[in-house]
Amino acid sequence: MKIFHSAKEFKNYTKNLRGSIGFVPTMGALHDGHMSLVRRAKEENDFCVVSIFVNPTQFLPGEDLSKYPRRIEADTKLCELAGVDALFLPTLEEMYEEDEPSIKAPKINGYVLEGFVRPGHFDGVLTVVMKLLNISSATKAYFGQKDAQQLILIEQMVKRYFMDVEIVACPTIREKEGLAMSSRNVYLDEEQKKASLAISKSLFAAGTMVGAGELDTAKIEARMREELAGLDVEYITFCDRNLGKQEKIELKNSIVLVAAKVGATRLIDNIWI
Amino acid sequence: MKIFHSAKEFKNYTKNLRGSIGFVPTMGALHDGHMSLVRRAKEENDFCVVSIFVNPTQFLPGEDLSKYPRRIEADTKLCELAGVDALFLPTLEEMYEEDEPSIKAPKINGYVLEGFVRPGHFDGVLTVVMKLLNISSATKAYFGQKDAQQLILIEQMVKRYFMDVEIVACPTIREKEGLAMSSRNVYLDEEQKKASLAISKSLFAAGTMVGAGELDTAKIEARMREELAGLDVEYITFCDRNLGKQEKIELKNSIVLVAAKVGATRLIDNIWI
Repeated sequence: MKIFHSAKEFKNYTKNLRGSIGFVPTMGALHDGHMSLVRRAKEENDFCVVSIFVNPTQFLPGEDLSKYPRRIEADTKLCELAGVDALFLPTLEEMYEEDEPSIKAPKINGYVLEGFVRPGHFDGVLTVVMKLLNISSATKAYFGQKDAQQLILIEQMVKRYFMDVEIVACPTIREKEGLAMSSRNVYLDEEQKKASLAISKSLFAAGTMVGAGELDTAKIEARMREELAGLDVEYITFCDRNLGKQEKIELKNSIVLVAAKVGATRLIDNIWI
Repeated sequence: MKIFHSAKEFKNYTKNLRGSIGFVPTMGALHDGHMSLVRRAKEENDFCVVSIFVNPTQFLPGEDLSKYPRRIEADTKLCELAGVDALFLPTLEEMYEEDEPSIKAPKINGYVLEGFVRPGHFDGVLTVVMKLLNISSATKAYFGQKDAQQLILIEQMVKRYFMDVEIVACPTIREKEGLAMSSRNVYLDEEQKKASLAISKSLFAAGTMVGAGELDTAKIEARMREELAGLDVEYITFCDRNLGKQEKIELKNSIVLVAAKVGATRLIDNIWI
């Protein structure tokens, strides 16, 4: 497996690959959610490349940038074992210059839900993803549905900037008991981990209600709030594939999203219906 | 010559061209400055494509968006006669969606000089140029040195976003008496046109002084102000190729920029030393 620290050298490598390139951008601390993206990228492409970069511009002041889990040796090993062709580990200086253009997320959709709680977060996400997609010369890039709003905003950016890459949405991977995998789960102690199961349970309950024919989001939300009673819920939202709010579930066009705090840790999860 | 109004169809056309593509993005009202870019694009590439789009996002409220010269029939004829392979004439709806990501110009370099007088102007320029470069699948894209700050910001964007296109800087084309060609020159009556010659004269005077060994920008500026005495000068600036202010001219690394109003018309011009 090749390892690149220089953006120029990585770009030079990817540009000269003969064949399709599947790209998985990550912030490291890889778990089976990431590895499911890597496996799919390998299956669907001639080459598979991965980036690990804890992107400072998507963290707000006071967020967990400095304590975000970093496990670069273990991550490198995981990529190597998974048959990744090249790993891109840029420094901050490779990715950002003092005074340079940035991407501004959509004024509405970039500032609701996660963007409301974390204003400016998606500016940073879109900026780094645009750069990484171009550096990686990706044919297809793989993102998890767990970060639903991020995925939707990236899909829109790629479409509206006429970029030559296909965004592939991949299902959320969960622990056996239901907790959506996230690098931030390491912040949870055993008790918090147990408490956090209320989030996935509330979403499964929503799915069950829809399966039984209930489409009224107010009723579904009430049921979800029962499950979530022990947690500090930031939002429960029902929206369409373009983040428009819904009062009635539309099959194949609804996402149910939850954000809640367990202790000091924010967790997000969702189901696509 | 093919004509496209749909971004998707134009992108589909350019993506499937076998050979290098020279691209000239314009706002129309084509003059010999534009046509010099077209000739160079033709010379240096297998295909030459041109866009005409009066981009609303780079006009500030109260600027001349509605009265900006539009001469689409004459422009089309000029492109056809010049041997352009395809002309892209998008509608507003093809280029912009209600709530989508935009490019934010660099906080410093995007907000000095033209960006100081026209705050937000370069956000709109960079946004539309990023889109057009991607839609045109350009190998090389041609921009005039007359819009020096625009050129420098686009070069930086392409570099920092690792885009697969080479930006080619082309010399300013002037009327016989020295006035830099601009679509906005049509706003000038005969008397104003004569008055406006002070701008190029002041720049030629600066060039002559540098040629004679004078590198002190304060002295050069004083001489320029004499030439410009009859006009409403907005700025005279000496900067390096990265828009950093200079007190001493550095050969091959200086730009002298002037912005002045002649009647209600803003004119900009510069020389690269």
